[in-house]
Amino acid sequence: MKGKLLFAQSGGPSSVINASACGIIQRAMTNENVEGVLAGIYGIEGILSNNIADVSQYDMAEIEALKYTPASAFGSCRHKMPDWKQDATLYEQLVAVFKQHNIRFFVYIGGNDSMDTCNKIALYMQSINYTCSVIGVPKTVDNDLMFTDHCPGFGSSAKFVATMCHEIAIDTAVYKKGRITLVEVMGRHAGWLTAASALATVHGAGPDLIYMPEHPFDMDSMVADAKCILEKQGHCLVAVSEGIKYANGKYVSESTPTGNDAFAHSQLGGVAQYLANELSNNYNVPTRAIELSLPQRCAGHIASATDSREAYEAGAYGVDLVCSGLTNHMVSFNRTSNKPYNIQLEPMCLDNIANAVKYMPREFINDKGNNVTDKLIEYALPLIQGENQVPYENGLPRYSNITPHSK
Amino acid sequence: MKGKLLFAQSGGPSSVINASACGIIQRAMTNENVEGVLAGIYGIEGILSNNIADVSQYDMAEIEALKYTPASAFGSCRHKMPDWKQDATLYEQLVAVFKQHNIRFFVYIGGNDSMDTCNKIALYMQSINYTCSVIGVPKTVDNDLMFTDHCPGFGSSAKFVATMCHEIAIDTAVYKKGRITLVEVMGRHAGWLTAASALATVHGAGPDLIYMPEHPFDMDSMVADAKCILEKQGHCLVAVSEGIKYANGKYVSESTPTGNDAFAHSQLGGVAQYLANELSNNYNVPTRAIELSLPQRCAGHIASATDSREAYEAGAYGVDLVCSGLTNHMVSFNRTSNKPYNIQLEPMCLDNIANAVKYMPREFINDKGNNVTDKLIEYALPLIQGENQVPYENGLPRYSNITPHSK
Repeated sequence: MKGKLLFAQSGGPSSVINASACGIIQRAMTNENVEGVLAGIYGIEGILSNNIADVSQYDMAEIEALKYTPASAFGSCRHKMPDWKQDATLYEQLVAVFKQHNIRFFVYIGGNDSMDTCNKIALYMQSINYTCSVIGVPKTVDNDLMFTDHCPGFGSSAKFVATMCHEIAIDTAVYKKGRITLVEVMGRHAGWLTAASALATVHGAGPDLIYMPEHPFDMDSMVADAKCILEKQGHCLVAVSEGIKYANGKYVSESTPTGNDAFAHSQLGGVAQYLANELSNNYNVPTRAIELSLPQRCAGHIASATDSREAYEAGAYGVDLVCSGLTNHMVSFNRTSNKPYNIQLEPMCLDNIANAVKYMPREFINDKGNNVTDKLIEYALPLIQGENQVPYENGLPRYSNITPHSK
Repeated sequence: MKGKLLFAQSGGPSSVINASACGIIQRAMTNENVEGVLAGIYGIEGILSNNIADVSQYDMAEIEALKYTPASAFGSCRHKMPDWKQDATLYEQLVAVFKQHNIRFFVYIGGNDSMDTCNKIALYMQSINYTCSVIGVPKTVDNDLMFTDHCPGFGSSAKFVATMCHEIAIDTAVYKKGRITLVEVMGRHAGWLTAASALATVHGAGPDLIYMPEHPFDMDSMVADAKCILEKQGHCLVAVSEGIKYANGKYVSESTPTGNDAFAHSQLGGVAQYLANELSNNYNVPTRAIELSLPQRCAGHIASATDSREAYEAGAYGVDLVCSGLTNHMVSFNRTSNKPYNIQLEPMCLDNIANAVKYMPREFINDKGNNVTDKLIEYALPLIQGENQVPYENGLPRYSNITPHSK
């Protein structure tokens, strides 16, 4: 089968989702079955409204620069597709667009919801006998997609989190009598990114305590542990996931154990700020809360070269798969060896991937639930290796100038 | 005069205060009048308790690594010295330590309060006829010291703020219908660092609106401007200084125009979060608040090479001055030319420097008070040029291992 290849980006951006797009574009342009490469602008939402760009119109040097450019150059969306068996309207709209452009290959880069979208589109296309292969390329800084060793995007965010926690650790150790500093890390469901803060300790200074959503959070234990460390060394650094929960299943960010001040809190601060207030108000301990926030997913200037390269290769491999006629699969990472680190890309059926969460295994978290084990370090360290050679102009990274408005 | 040279670091750390320490150490070791180089651990507080290290005990490769290591390797303090004419107790204690070690040269790296300390110590030493020269080396990410073109530390923080604002700008532009994103930048009194966020726009994407403490903040104008930009381009990025004030002089972070929710707010969030809540609650606009927080002053991995080099040279020049017998002066930066950028270091009497704040000149801020002018760009752009060649090990910056506990 010959025809055009369409790709798009979806969900929250990352530092390397553009590298995957670059891999898709550059590989697709050399495939003899591909009669043109199209970019869907603003994800599936844009495709539905026929917002589609021919990539041959872009400057190829700017496409090449996508290898180290953060965010989603072709735009993104958060759009959950309905069940086509209930209502096929949007799918009919989609196929009309595909037919108009003779799109026979579709590659979608994204996280959990995007893989769900891929799954549904692939099955719908089969149901109407429209020949179009659909392949998903994984992306999520949260690293919580099932059936893959890890996800592109995670390594770069982990490198940023670990670097910042290392720098914050040495910064907050300069006073003889310091504070308890709480750093809030992304991860609503799984603790991968928070756990990666532990990589900072590879060079000595890093978090003293780490709290992840997989282990029930106990306020009294945290207070006791943090105060003990503060008294001993004069300062204490705590990394905490935004998604930590009490044993009763309630998010710490949404309620206190007594459920009193939920509203004010959810309005005015994150979980690190809440814990900082608890410590300073109830225990008279000096504190500071830091939320790493959006920079965790867009700090391209300190992306992991390993992550960028893998994201590129995942995109290119996705093209190989989709052009071979395989459909309803995601590119998956299989770690065949850790020392030396070696990854093999494989197709994984999408039916079982969507709508599930990969939590950290128990053996990656210590018994007390206040730090990681060496197993986590062994797992995550290979993923942050290497630095991209980002070109600088005027003292700032000079990223690709392709934006959703470039079209 | 011959004798030992003592230096120490003070106030909040920066990405380059260690570069100044390195400049002091390496220059002092080659000066024939210096019979030994001593580091005061934890600033003037440590010196008062005779917490002093002989730098010859450190590994010289780790001293060299201070050129790119953030934070204060020799510790810091925030200690305001009293007026010695009122109470000379601490000063007598200090001179006892100086006499014990035969300290004849004292170099203190720090900001406003530290220059005040230098000033007092220099005058006290003269008053008791103890021969000891005292020189201050400037350091502040806030860039608000008087009588110097700029301060070491500012350029690196400006580079981090500009880089992050560039990356956040492209990240937040990926959705067709986005939000108003508010980024809070350090600067309680002066807007230098917040203004530096405008450097992001050199590569296209950066803040659309910038609010600095020097211009009275008007909530209605900000809301109107931000909403207008959001409607026009689908997203809006606002950089806001933590120190913005209403026309009545009250900090926005401490009170609303009606003064209602001051307590809850000062407890639970910064000014960006407060403005985000105002916009989303009262105007139904999607928002996100980001506080750049501590990383602004410790992100050594993206320090400005110009800033690091100048910080080193300021330390070395401070040694030249102090060893020439000059006292009660600070190393000052005089910009003799902007294109090409050229700086001349000069001594500046400390009597007039301490306890004053250098605000941004009116001509650096636009008429509406919601952005900077080209003059600010011309001023700040040379200060963020160049990237340090920070060595990486295990995927993380490998900084100097010298800490206040190394001694």
